[in-house]
Parts: sequence; structure tokens; C-alpha cells
Amino acid sequence: MLKALLTTLFALFAVSSFAQADSPKAEAGHFRHVVMFKFKEGTSAEKVAEIEKHFGSLEEKIDTIVDYEWGHAIPESRGLDQGFTHCFVVTFKDKAGLEVYAPHQAHQDFIAVFKPHVEKVFVLDYVSK
Amino acid sequence: MLKALLTTLFALFAVSSFAQADSPKAEAGHFRHVVMFKFKEGTSAEKVAEIEKHFGSLEEKIDTIVDYEWGHAIPESRGLDQGFTHCFVVTFKDKAGLEVYAPHQAHQDFIAVFKPHVEKVFVLDYVSK
Repeated sequence: MLKALLTTLFALFAVSSFAQADSPKAEAGHFRHVVMFKFKEGTSAEKVAEIEKHFGSLEEKIDTIVDYEWGHAIPESRGLDQGFTHCFVVTFKDKAGLEVYAPHQAHQDFIAVFKPHVEKVFVLDYVSK
Repeated sequence: MLKALLTTLFALFAVSSFAQADSPKAEAGHFRHVVMFKFKEGTSAEKVAEIEKHFGSLEEKIDTIVDYEWGHAIPESRGLDQGFTHCFVVTFKDKAGLEVYAPHQAHQDFIAVFKPHVEKVFVLDYVSK
């Protein structure tokens, strides 16, 4: 009984430690691909939601993506945000990860979907320190 | 002996779980304050390094900052990065965290230091999903 409990505890600790080490925020040196969108005036809320969802689906299709998050610009940043309304951060382990992502068919398909609806795109990549 | 081992294991697991829960990347809903700089032409490398260091020091001075990272724009994003060379991401637990940061004396002092050397600033805040 005690042995089983010990084994379970060891397993839980191991999984837990692994999850921590695996978190992109746990260490510096990750490759961040920051993308901002401003949609064209008149783009329907349904189309915007469809594009948001599509971007999110890339994580399942391109295995060099190690982390992904996004959000809507909040009103407080208006004035210095150039009217961009969406920020997406795609994280790769390294530059090689981006080099798989950029030409990947799933990414190219996504570009074809969002391009007609987006007025401005901003992209900046950096390696986190 | 076994009891001591069990207690230790429980403690390790508890600490480990806490560290994970505390990581800004471990859950959505964090408040990200994204700041980009383009320095004025002729700004010395020493001045740029001083400003980078100064930004990093805010984390110790303003306790609502729960995470901070930054990096230089890498050449691959040139073309869509508008010439911005630096990206800084300051993370708060919530909007209240930003509201402490924005008027904080340490932040205001930093603004006075970087402003004369920066040609363009971009700021966008979002809540991570």
C-alpha cells in the first residue's frame, strides 16, 4: 500500500516537473513570432471569429509550434497601437521552428484565408531574454 | 523513515504544483503589455544597452509585474516590423496590475530616460487566451 502510494507520488512529481520544464516561459531563449492584425472595415464578426479560430488551429497542424496565445487589444492601449485589434504570439523552440512553420501548407492556407479581410499586418520576431 | 520520505515527497509535489500554477504561461487570462521601440538614428549602442537594462529593472521596482521578457527583432521579420528593433512584454495578473504600473514613479522615471532616444513606440495590451 505504502509502496503504491510512493510510486504514485513519484510519478506525479515527475509529470509535474516535466510540465514545468516544458513550459515556454520557464526558460529564456524561445523564439517568439508576434503577429498583429487590423481587420478591414466592414469585416463581419463571424469572419473575424473564423479567422481567430483558424489561427488557433495551426498549433495542432504544425508541430514546431510549442506555445500559442492571442488576445484582443484592450482599449487602454489605443493611441499607440496603430488601430491593431488582435495580437497573436506563436512560439517556437528556435529559428528552425519558424522555418518549418513559414512555408508549411497549413500556414499558407491560413494566409490565403485571412489576407482578403486584413487591412494591416505587423510581424516582429524575437528571441526571449 | 517512510513517513519522512512521504512528507518530503508531498512537500516537493506541493511546491512543484504551486510553481506551475504561478507561471504566467501555465494559464490563460494574463494581462500582456507589449511595447516596441525603434531608436533614433545615431543612438549609441551604450545608450540602447542602458535603456534595455533600465526597462528590465522595473520588474524589481513594481511588484505588480509578474513576468517580463524582451528581445531584439530578428532580421527575418523585417518588412512587416516597421523598423521596430525591440520588443518588450510586461505581464500583469490583471488590468489592476497595469494601473499600478502606468503611473508608478519608477515607470515615469524610465519614460523620461528613454523618450529622448526613441523615434517610435508601439504599445498594445491584450489578455491572453
